[in-house]
Formats: sequence, C-alpha cells, structure tokens
Amino acid sequence: MTIASGLSLRGPVGVVGLGLIGGSIGLDLRAQGIEVRALVHRAVTADRARQRGLADQVATDPAVLAGCRLVVLALPLDRLLHPTPELVAALPPEAAITDVGSVKVPVLARWQPLHPRFVASHPMAGTAQAGVEAGLGGLFADRPWVATPGPATDRQALAQVQALAAALGSRWLECAAEAHDRAVALISHAPVLVSAALLLAADRAAQAGAVSGVAELPELVRALASSGFADTTRVGGGNPELGTLMARHNRDAVLAALGHYRQALEALEQELSSGTWPALQADLERCQRLRPEFL
Amino acid sequence: MTIASGLSLRGPVGVVGLGLIGGSIGLDLRAQGIEVRALVHRAVTADRARQRGLADQVATDPAVLAGCRLVVLALPLDRLLHPTPELVAALPPEAAITDVGSVKVPVLARWQPLHPRFVASHPMAGTAQAGVEAGLGGLFADRPWVATPGPATDRQALAQVQALAAALGSRWLECAAEAHDRAVALISHAPVLVSAALLLAADRAAQAGAVSGVAELPELVRALASSGFADTTRVGGGNPELGTLMARHNRDAVLAALGHYRQALEALEQELSSGTWPALQADLERCQRLRPEFL
Repeated sequence: MTIASGLSLRGPVGVVGLGLIGGSIGLDLRAQGIEVRALVHRAVTADRARQRGLADQVATDPAVLAGCRLVVLALPLDRLLHPTPELVAALPPEAAITDVGSVKVPVLARWQPLHPRFVASHPMAGTAQAGVEAGLGGLFADRPWVATPGPATDRQALAQVQALAAALGSRWLECAAEAHDRAVALISHAPVLVSAALLLAADRAAQAGAVSGVAELPELVRALASSGFADTTRVGGGNPELGTLMARHNRDAVLAALGHYRQALEALEQELSSGTWPALQADLERCQRLRPEFL
Repeated sequence: MTIASGLSLRGPVGVVGLGLIGGSIGLDLRAQGIEVRALVHRAVTADRARQRGLADQVATDPAVLAGCRLVVLALPLDRLLHPTPELVAALPPEAAITDVGSVKVPVLARWQPLHPRFVASHPMAGTAQAGVEAGLGGLFADRPWVATPGPATDRQALAQVQALAAALGSRWLECAAEAHDRAVALISHAPVLVSAALLLAADRAAQAGAVSGVAELPELVRALASSGFADTTRVGGGNPELGTLMARHNRDAVLAALGHYRQALEALEQELSSGTWPALQADLERCQRLRPEFL
C-alpha cells in the first residue's frame, strides 16, 4: 500500500471526459508540465474546457487520443459501461488505460476484453460539484487511489497508473475488485440511501404530524434542523444521477450492506423500545470508539 | 417568531451548571456587563470555572442563586429531571427559571409544579465538546432558541427568557412542547441512531466479510472511508451519554420517527431490489430538493 519509488509519469496523457475528476486530473498534470489531451462529448464543453485550461488539447474527435501513453476514462459510470465503438477504436493499443469509476467488478468485466492494457482504478476524491466547471487543482492530494488488478492485468500498465496517482499526490492501494465493491457499498453507496431516507422520513413524518394535529411540524423541523441534520443528510441530498448509478451498478453489495444496516438499526430500536439504556449506551460508546478508526 | 422590541435583560443571572451551554451563556453575558452567578456541583469545577471567567461568582452552595432575577438550569437531562431538593429550595420564588434541555414534555411535567415562573426552553446550539472547558463565546448567535410555553406559563417570565435569548443573539421561536419533542426526534434524536447504526453496520459487515473470504475488508473500509462517511456518522459517533439521554427521555417520539425512517429506507431498498431505477432516481431528486429547505 505504499508508493513504489522511481515511478515517473510520462505524457502525453489522454483524459476522456472533463467533469470533476477529469478536469481536476487535467489541471494537476498540466501544472506539472505533463501534456494532457482531452476528449469530450460536446463542442460547448470543449470550448469551456479550453477557456479553463483543463487540457493542452481538447477535442470532440477521438483521434485526439492518438499518441497518448496513458488514457484515463473519466466518464460517468453508465457511459463507461457502454462505451461507443469510436472511443474503443481510438484507444492506442500500446497505451495503458484506466478508469475512475466507483464500482470495479462490472467495469473490469466490461473493459478487460476491450483493451489488453486496461487497469481498473478508483480515485476516492470528490466534491458536490459536477461538470466542466467543477475541476479543481489538488483534488487528489492525500486521498486514496484504489486499483483492482487481477491476474490478467498488465503489470507495466498498472505501474503507469500508479505513477499517475503518485503525480497527483494520492495514496496508492491495491485490492481485489470484489473487496473494493463491498467496501465502497458499506462506506459510500449504502450511506447515500441511509442519508436520503432521513430526509424523506423527516419530511413525511412532519407532513403526517401536520394532518394529525401538529400543524406547525413541517415548518418546525425545517426551522430547527441544524448542523447535525445537515451533516447526516449531506450525501443523501447529493447528485441523484450519481447515487442511482452507484446503487444500480453495485446492487448486490449495496443490498447486502443495507441488510447489515437494517439489523444494526433494529437492534438499537429494540434497546430503545425495551428501555435497556445501559445496552444502548454501550452501543453508542462503541460507535464513539469506532468512528476515529474510519477517519 | 421574531424578537419583541424593547426587551432588556437585567441581572444578576444565575446559571446552574457550567458545561458547554452554561459556560457559554456565562461568557456571553459577562461580555455584555451582565452579572452572572453560577452554581456547580464540584469544587474542582468551580476553581476551573473561575480561572476561565465563566461567571462573576462561582459556588457549590445553592445560596449563590439568592437575588438572581433569572436562573438558567444548564444541567444534563437526567440531573434536570431529578433536581436535588436543595437546588429547588434555593431558586428565588420571584425569579424566572428556565432550562436548556433537548426534550420539553418531561421537563415541563417535572418543573411546572416545582416553580411558578418556570419556562421550558431549548437553545439549539452545540459543539462536540462538554464540561467546564467547553464553554465559548458566541455559541448561540443566529441559532434557534425555542421556548415551549403552555397556558400556565408566566408571561413576564417568558419575556425574561426571551430577553436572555436576544442578549445571546439567538433566533426566538415558540411552539408547543409536544411539537418541539416530535420535531427534535426527527431532526436530532433519531438521526443519532440512524448515524450510529451505520458505524455498527460497516464494522460488523466488514468483520463478516473477513470471515467469509475477504480478509482485508475491515482494513479496507477503514482506509477508504472518506468525507461522506465522516459526515454521515458524525452525530452517531458523538457523546454516548447525551445520545442515550435524548433517546430515553423522548422515547415515544424517537420510536415514531424511527418507524417513519424504516418505511422510507425500505422503500428505497425495494426500488434497489426490484431495479426500478427511475423511481430511485426520482426519490434521490426529491432529497436533493428537500435538503436545502432544512438548512
């Protein structure tokens, strides 16, 4: 899990998609003098990306990727899993190819047959922003960059992706694709639904209260919600397309995580219902000890 | 819900308990030249409170409250609900008395018979800190201060508490005690358990994974957890005593809130399980619209 020494990234690096992740990669690499060539879908995005200086060359023609030694597929999960034939055909056979998708089993299943030097990876960094305006410098510094190589993965291509992560200041990790997907279901994808349900429940319960005699409840929950509610609901109130894609493409692991979650919540609810306060307090003490392990 | 004009707070103000809330009240009032007299439980706390300048007088003898025009009971919920006879006897009959507890129905039931000028209130401000070191200036600025007067509440005492809230820069709100308790169950107390369950589930699911073939899962979830997980679990990993007290003394409302929560989460889980992605996305879009209403 440490960065191998002596890795150096040589360009040109191709970036497909200049949203938050692709744009941020472009900015950081260019700041280091590494040439970046970007492929985007729409001409208006290309114009704006050029204005923002996200890449040295920005084009809507896949031919822009010719000559790249490494290509990063920084596409939304649905487009990554359904690449156009033109994109696949334009990827240089000698280049290392990687992606930035938040699930790895389906990406690996899709891309391993498409390119001999494909390496599945996932830089774990983000903000609430998306689109061509979102990219920013330093996004990946000290953040995990997880690669999920398998027996078929080209080791030299893997080293190139590791050099990219090192250039961006990320912490390099390797694990099996299945382990990655189960882990992110637990700490990222299921929390979106756990958090979203809290917003839906607060709203519906307040409405139910309003019709059953506490007329001011919808207004009151909105007036009284403070930083705790804001924190707990942040990921649930985030990008709906992204949340849906993660749930969709990591469905089994997210359902398993939610099963564990339901058990844990029901145990707490049972302690509350039966008034076994020492048990509830012991569980909350356990949570207080656990949380720093995750941060 | 607006501050009445012409309210002015006159001292001396008594503060019982100099933890986060009591200490912060003391600092802000003293900064405005209002005399603060504080009662604390232990001599060592009194010494430290004096060093920190949390009050003009700090004593362990309830007689310190004699002559106060307003007394704030800034005690933990359990001690507030089981006050010592000495404390009750020391409260000046002519003073307005208020509390800062996070539930209002049981506090009102307990204190209304104890003092004719008791006003139940709840300043909604906090940090993760507790104890005599925790108090800080400006804690209440722009935060809601909720009072839950009933038909028996002395209106002049209520005005004195409103003047206190105004002096601390809070936003004044009034509602029924039952409405308050239902609202805070939804936006504060239930979220603690929702958030705690996520920590317990992530830990247990990772352990379960480790024994069923994914040995690195416990380490991996800890390495990959990022700001989203940190935010979603913040209140669940907070003060266990406080979380238990809130659940215990607002049990019915928290159980009702968790019932609504379970329904909301099960609906999302069902959409995931059946693969009805447009419905899931519509729900997440609703969350994205809802969240700003609460902030």
